[in-house]
Amino acid sequence: MPNPLIDDRTLDFVLHDVVGLDSLLALPRFAEHDRAVCDATIDSVRRYSREVLFPAYRLLDAEPPVLREGRALVHPRLQEIWPGLRDLGLISAGRSTEIGGQQLPFLVTLAAILHVQAANCPLYSFLGLTTGAAHLIEAFGSPALKERYLAPLLEGTWTGTMALTEPQAGSSLADIETRATPSGDHYLVSGSKIFISGGDHDLTENIVHMVLARIEGAPAGVKGISLFLVPKMRPDGGRLAPNDVKVAGLIHKIGWRGLPAAALNFGEEGDCHGWLVGEPHRGLAAMFQMMNEARLVIGGSGVATASVAYQESLAYARSRPQGRPLANRDASSPQVPITEHADVRRMLLRQKAIVEGGLALLLQCARLSDLAGHGEGEAKARSQLLLDLLTPVAKSFPAEKGFEANVLAMQVHGGYGYSSEHLPEAWLRDQKLNSIHEGTTGIQGLDLLGRKVMVEKGAALRILGEEVAATCARAAKAGVDPAWIAAVGETGKKVGALTGELARRGQERGGEAMLLHSADYLDLFSSWVVAWQWLEMAAAAREALADGRTPGAFYEGKLAAAQHWIRTEMPKVDALITVCHEGEESYRTVPDEGF
Amino acid sequence: MPNPLIDDRTLDFVLHDVVGLDSLLALPRFAEHDRAVCDATIDSVRRYSREVLFPAYRLLDAEPPVLREGRALVHPRLQEIWPGLRDLGLISAGRSTEIGGQQLPFLVTLAAILHVQAANCPLYSFLGLTTGAAHLIEAFGSPALKERYLAPLLEGTWTGTMALTEPQAGSSLADIETRATPSGDHYLVSGSKIFISGGDHDLTENIVHMVLARIEGAPAGVKGISLFLVPKMRPDGGRLAPNDVKVAGLIHKIGWRGLPAAALNFGEEGDCHGWLVGEPHRGLAAMFQMMNEARLVIGGSGVATASVAYQESLAYARSRPQGRPLANRDASSPQVPITEHADVRRMLLRQKAIVEGGLALLLQCARLSDLAGHGEGEAKARSQLLLDLLTPVAKSFPAEKGFEANVLAMQVHGGYGYSSEHLPEAWLRDQKLNSIHEGTTGIQGLDLLGRKVMVEKGAALRILGEEVAATCARAAKAGVDPAWIAAVGETGKKVGALTGELARRGQERGGEAMLLHSADYLDLFSSWVVAWQWLEMAAAAREALADGRTPGAFYEGKLAAAQHWIRTEMPKVDALITVCHEGEESYRTVPDEGF
Repeated sequence: MPNPLIDDRTLDFVLHDVVGLDSLLALPRFAEHDRAVCDATIDSVRRYSREVLFPAYRLLDAEPPVLREGRALVHPRLQEIWPGLRDLGLISAGRSTEIGGQQLPFLVTLAAILHVQAANCPLYSFLGLTTGAAHLIEAFGSPALKERYLAPLLEGTWTGTMALTEPQAGSSLADIETRATPSGDHYLVSGSKIFISGGDHDLTENIVHMVLARIEGAPAGVKGISLFLVPKMRPDGGRLAPNDVKVAGLIHKIGWRGLPAAALNFGEEGDCHGWLVGEPHRGLAAMFQMMNEARLVIGGSGVATASVAYQESLAYARSRPQGRPLANRDASSPQVPITEHADVRRMLLRQKAIVEGGLALLLQCARLSDLAGHGEGEAKARSQLLLDLLTPVAKSFPAEKGFEANVLAMQVHGGYGYSSEHLPEAWLRDQKLNSIHEGTTGIQGLDLLGRKVMVEKGAALRILGEEVAATCARAAKAGVDPAWIAAVGETGKKVGALTGELARRGQERGGEAMLLHSADYLDLFSSWVVAWQWLEMAAAAREALADGRTPGAFYEGKLAAAQHWIRTEMPKVDALITVCHEGEESYRTVPDEGF
Repeated sequence: MPNPLIDDRTLDFVLHDVVGLDSLLALPRFAEHDRAVCDATIDSVRRYSREVLFPAYRLLDAEPPVLREGRALVHPRLQEIWPGLRDLGLISAGRSTEIGGQQLPFLVTLAAILHVQAANCPLYSFLGLTTGAAHLIEAFGSPALKERYLAPLLEGTWTGTMALTEPQAGSSLADIETRATPSGDHYLVSGSKIFISGGDHDLTENIVHMVLARIEGAPAGVKGISLFLVPKMRPDGGRLAPNDVKVAGLIHKIGWRGLPAAALNFGEEGDCHGWLVGEPHRGLAAMFQMMNEARLVIGGSGVATASVAYQESLAYARSRPQGRPLANRDASSPQVPITEHADVRRMLLRQKAIVEGGLALLLQCARLSDLAGHGEGEAKARSQLLLDLLTPVAKSFPAEKGFEANVLAMQVHGGYGYSSEHLPEAWLRDQKLNSIHEGTTGIQGLDLLGRKVMVEKGAALRILGEEVAATCARAAKAGVDPAWIAAVGETGKKVGALTGELARRGQERGGEAMLLHSADYLDLFSSWVVAWQWLEMAAAAREALADGRTPGAFYEGKLAAAQHWIRTEMPKVDALITVCHEGEESYRTVPDEGF
């Protein structure tokens, strides 16, 4: 029996006892689905992931795509896998039945996606980027573009990409230089993009790039950026003709190696056609409308990559005899499994707390996404605000703390973990990307503190406070240790006070002063948010134990992880609050020549 | 001009203004050396490291040794480099002139070694392991063994290894199973060792393995382990004959790839001769006598690997334009170097604080090693106690926090950092080994809390307290911010109180209870110790500024990094003290099936 990718029972617990899938299924949008359909969807993806995707992981990591005659060629094994991967139905799972989708909650789709990501993280991107491109066209494209591009993307006959980053601009999208010149019904596009995941491959006959570019004469900065659909092959009569999109090179990434990342040149020969999607100069807003979902998916890859490594290190620790308990001085007694050593238990429980805390947060966000899209009345707006607030956390926490978990999974393996004959090192490499793509952790910190907690005079943070209070009430009723409830509640008050203080600092001394500690703020805010989720899980575990549900050890494990997170992290949050409060400014004041 | 490997001026500052090399040179042992000789030694190694070793780094990382016909073959480029590397004189630098050494302080040798490690980390091990083997033979070997083996090792004609680890035992040396059976003047050795660095290669005609094994009938556990010299080729008349040491395989390490790590089988054919070094059953004690120096050298590789990455990320950040200051809303203004963004400055200053804090600690330990070996009177014993206390910190801090620094160096590079076309990812891989080899971080935590702070009723910790008090006095006199001095002093008191509390917990409830938080204790103790070093550096910087020494920005940079470390880390130490004090025990109580 192979290790689980995501612990099955835990996923079930989070979906049903913590996040509450059933309440979503009561919405009209999801009326045709019941719990059994959702479970079956997840289960089929889980099975395929374990049986097909995971066994191919090592091979695709070892032999990444190659560039030959200007074309990125994926591994032959991936060619074999692709039809099955495409036909899982994940691209269209969340779209409405009107356009051929299954109209499933994002919560269910994401729970399924996590298995693909845990089994073979880079491969999901072929689907996810296609989902994103199709969604953009659906939301903003002209009827003609929809007619031509939507079906092949949703079916996975073609794939999509997001072409934002340029070599000279990086995170600074304001400095995008790719140009678009009107030419009849289309534009002529020219410019260079870099790090384009799935930017070229030979899995499908066409690739649809969603490209940010400037229309000639557009204003400088982000207010002059438009969104274009630029296919690799443009439909021309009944056939596909090359569209002057060239692969300038492949990036030699240290992870996510099953997925080609390309540098692309558009319009080297002046013949690259692009079609405007949405309004001129409104491209960034359109792209960001999709970005939130993409960021949750990246959060998913963080959780999934930490999860599979946790499961592997747990299985290793259980099977690896080494040493004896400290109290046993008899060197002739047999060695014990390393799960008996305190420090190994610490490394395992911390991984668990990170993985499952991240999982709960992520699936809460998926539920909020469903409510924001398809809920009714006040709940809809409220969910959108809360989702916007939590998205930078759901994107960065699994990346940052997930990386810590991946390091621990390696460390549990000792010297063996340092060898490429074992998998933890590969997952560590994969995880690192998650703090970089779709907005670096630094960008997420600025987004959280500079925008999300500040909008509508802190409305989102107030809503979060109400949610935390509801969790505290549930936990109190369920008989969770009052000290944990108090710790989460008190920390919330301190976070609120700090936020107010930073807002005032911003009003008095400007954005630079307010945002000086945005990285620390993201860190402490995330720890608190995850503590909230652990309190919710503790409440659900207590309720289950009171109901006599078994196995008891499963629920005791949740309580232990909740205790670990709340009791070890809340004091660290206090420490970070102190640093922010004091406005420790050494890195602002250090002279440039003093580094 | 290439980036520095270790900032030259900082090394000079630490050696002379912080650690005080001159006072060591006053000892009789080092009477023949003056500061100019020391500087010249370091400078020649620095130059060779930059000009020869660093340019070969990427190549040797990309093309590791291969096993062919039972023999590990290093890269041809390493074959070319080897004579120059060997002839740097680092193997014998610290040994007495009587046996052909240069009798240099270890402080100077280590400062030189750091450049080799920063330039091409794995290559130093060929020298370092040889130094260690020679030192063991010098200290414990019979006159015949010394006569035969010492000169070729010290000259680097042969190299040495430390063969401790066995596949079934890992960190649990008590479970070593390699056997030695008396046979005339020698023993017949049989058994398997794994992860033996430099265990085979084709750089020299012979390799001398220092092997831990059990003599037939020895007691179980660590009290039955003896030390043997087992050459790959045994001197037989005037020639070298094969000694039945077989390479079972090479480990595919993810870093340190210039250095072969082998699984070795001794005595497959019953013809592997070994010679006892020291007393029977006292092998572990002998090995550990050398281990302290080895652990400082590993600390060196941690500092060096973080240093070279810091320098690279600093140079990158200075040359990479991206975005604008928050206050500048003019998107048509030119982009600024990313060193102007607060979060990038944070990532740079934190790297600096880790790298230079680790450097100072390490060189303090090297000085203590010199005093413990060659000092006089009370200072000698005092230095030994303090060195023993600080060694687990000097070994693990650069590995753990150095890894954090290496992650930041990658993150500063953004998407480019995730590519193997840039070096930060390679240094990140290299760094990871330092938390594993020569005793994992978990082992260092047990060593610190279970042994080092407890010996002689806390004598070492009292000595450290006196040293910290002396630093506080120097800092006060120099005009360092009193808040920093108070923070370091107060934290020291809290660490002392916690240590007393844990000692009592051990007396009342046993070692398991005392050591439950050994990892947290190591972490908080290390942060405090490094804060002590930053306070010392702040004092030295203030003194230099008062003397009008230039450039002022250099000393201001030290003050900024000191401020960063003390003001951000001391609150975190408080948080960890809280966790230890409360005895948070979730990972002890969690049921095995609850993970």
